[in-house]
Amino acid sequence: MSLVVVGSVAYDGVETPHGRVERMLGGACTYIALAASYFTHVKIVAVVGDDFDQADLDLLASRGIDLAGLERVPGKTFYWAGVYSEDMNDRTTLRTELNVFADFQPKLPDHYKSQPYLMLGNIQPSLQRGVREQMNGLRLAGGDTMNYWISDYREELLETLKGWDFLLINDSEARELSGERVLRRAAHAILDMGPHTLVIKRGEYGAILFRKDGYFSVPGYLLDRVFDPTGAGDSFAGGFVGYLAEQGIDPAGGKVDVSHLRAAVVYGSVMGSFCCERFGVDRFRTLTRAEIDGRFQEFRAFTRF
Amino acid sequence: MSLVVVGSVAYDGVETPHGRVERMLGGACTYIALAASYFTHVKIVAVVGDDFDQADLDLLASRGIDLAGLERVPGKTFYWAGVYSEDMNDRTTLRTELNVFADFQPKLPDHYKSQPYLMLGNIQPSLQRGVREQMNGLRLAGGDTMNYWISDYREELLETLKGWDFLLINDSEARELSGERVLRRAAHAILDMGPHTLVIKRGEYGAILFRKDGYFSVPGYLLDRVFDPTGAGDSFAGGFVGYLAEQGIDPAGGKVDVSHLRAAVVYGSVMGSFCCERFGVDRFRTLTRAEIDGRFQEFRAFTRF
Repeated sequence: MSLVVVGSVAYDGVETPHGRVERMLGGACTYIALAASYFTHVKIVAVVGDDFDQADLDLLASRGIDLAGLERVPGKTFYWAGVYSEDMNDRTTLRTELNVFADFQPKLPDHYKSQPYLMLGNIQPSLQRGVREQMNGLRLAGGDTMNYWISDYREELLETLKGWDFLLINDSEARELSGERVLRRAAHAILDMGPHTLVIKRGEYGAILFRKDGYFSVPGYLLDRVFDPTGAGDSFAGGFVGYLAEQGIDPAGGKVDVSHLRAAVVYGSVMGSFCCERFGVDRFRTLTRAEIDGRFQEFRAFTRF
Repeated sequence: MSLVVVGSVAYDGVETPHGRVERMLGGACTYIALAASYFTHVKIVAVVGDDFDQADLDLLASRGIDLAGLERVPGKTFYWAGVYSEDMNDRTTLRTELNVFADFQPKLPDHYKSQPYLMLGNIQPSLQRGVREQMNGLRLAGGDTMNYWISDYREELLETLKGWDFLLINDSEARELSGERVLRRAAHAILDMGPHTLVIKRGEYGAILFRKDGYFSVPGYLLDRVFDPTGAGDSFAGGFVGYLAEQGIDPAGGKVDVSHLRAAVVYGSVMGSFCCERFGVDRFRTLTRAEIDGRFQEFRAFTRF
């Protein structure tokens, strides 16, 4: 029983107040897969160029990630470069070179298609839908999106969302998607679009899980130093869906256990917080499940009253 | 055993996306006192002009608030007018007329001086210190401040803080006071200035309680509609200190019960959320303790995992 993750595998150039890295492994699929790999077996679908480093393949393989769906084609791997503001709450994109990612057509190896869990990273909604339709034994499917698809591919996105169990987005995206300023109203408008579960990520302020029957809110973990927030949202997604896969959650097979969903939001927060502690994916080179569970308990300790 | 509250009693003109009120009861002391009055007996120290309405005195008296320290002098009551942005996260001050408040010298009636609890609203630090020094049986004293005092009266403020058990400020004030961007570091720098307890208010995102041995974080309550956020921070303060007074908390007399402090932060959040539901102090005209305790239980329900 595996989790299939679809999205970008990329190289990033990142500058934060703590330093600068010219070229490091990145991409939504990478962060989601690495974070989820602490909870469940992961299979990825992505494309890279012939410049992709063996060391980066080795890192993914070392986490037990199935790379059969990682297509390698002539050309250069997707490259993104950006610089963060002093307080890390804003970032400016310096370069976006889609390269081989421009023609990405997700191809699922046959042994992926019967897997029960699917997480669709932020790519064009029609591609997300195409993947969803190739899967034939899903228990839980969902994904992420972004402002660009919400504004310029709205109908395509709405059609895609109908097939999802969960959607993970940030608060400004939730407001744009729903047309509602008040978060609670925005959430209920989105829950009418298809997903029964919505997670709104609020960066340093935490995250909120919405379902039609109520909500769960968890504040952010207070880091002593945010080294690099790149990938934190995708790491959150990986922790969230990875934990649900580990629990074998099966909404269609009966009622959803809300306590699992709540714990999944906390595990997502835990993985996002770890991600920020080092540049890029570096924290996942040393992170252990014991550290993850330790921080989960810290969340309990600082939220309980 | 009463709580003494010192600060402004004012008239406010407020415009939000939901409407506009030309002149309504406001001021930090007013909101703190009203919110705290649901938990403990309150005595206020403030000054108003001869234009102050009997109906507003009646409202305060109806909540059992001792008005012996409410000085009435010739002239006009402090007037403030402001307009909120569409998302309510910013406000622009249109008018500030200090009037009789410009010469405010807090005078404590004799029967105030032996009370155990003191909450100093946002006024000049030297005045806050003067009040603190007139009290002779304090168990717990603290207050609020603002950017103006932090930047232009820094030494006076630092001298004042040395005598406080707790400080309640918002996140931008905490950063300015400490010179630290990262909230956790900012908090520890402030805890070295005197107060053993620091509450950082984050508006819609909730609040964090810091003490040297750890922190407690509570997310914000999700309102369906924020009518008017004026006074929410002061209502938070009133709920926080009012609840501690109700519990008879006595840090000097032994160890502090951290569970009381955590619950106080939640009661503060509850009172701030109610405040936003109507214009000005209007919600406090009908609010009951049962509603307050009900919302406290709601906080438990949406934060537990």
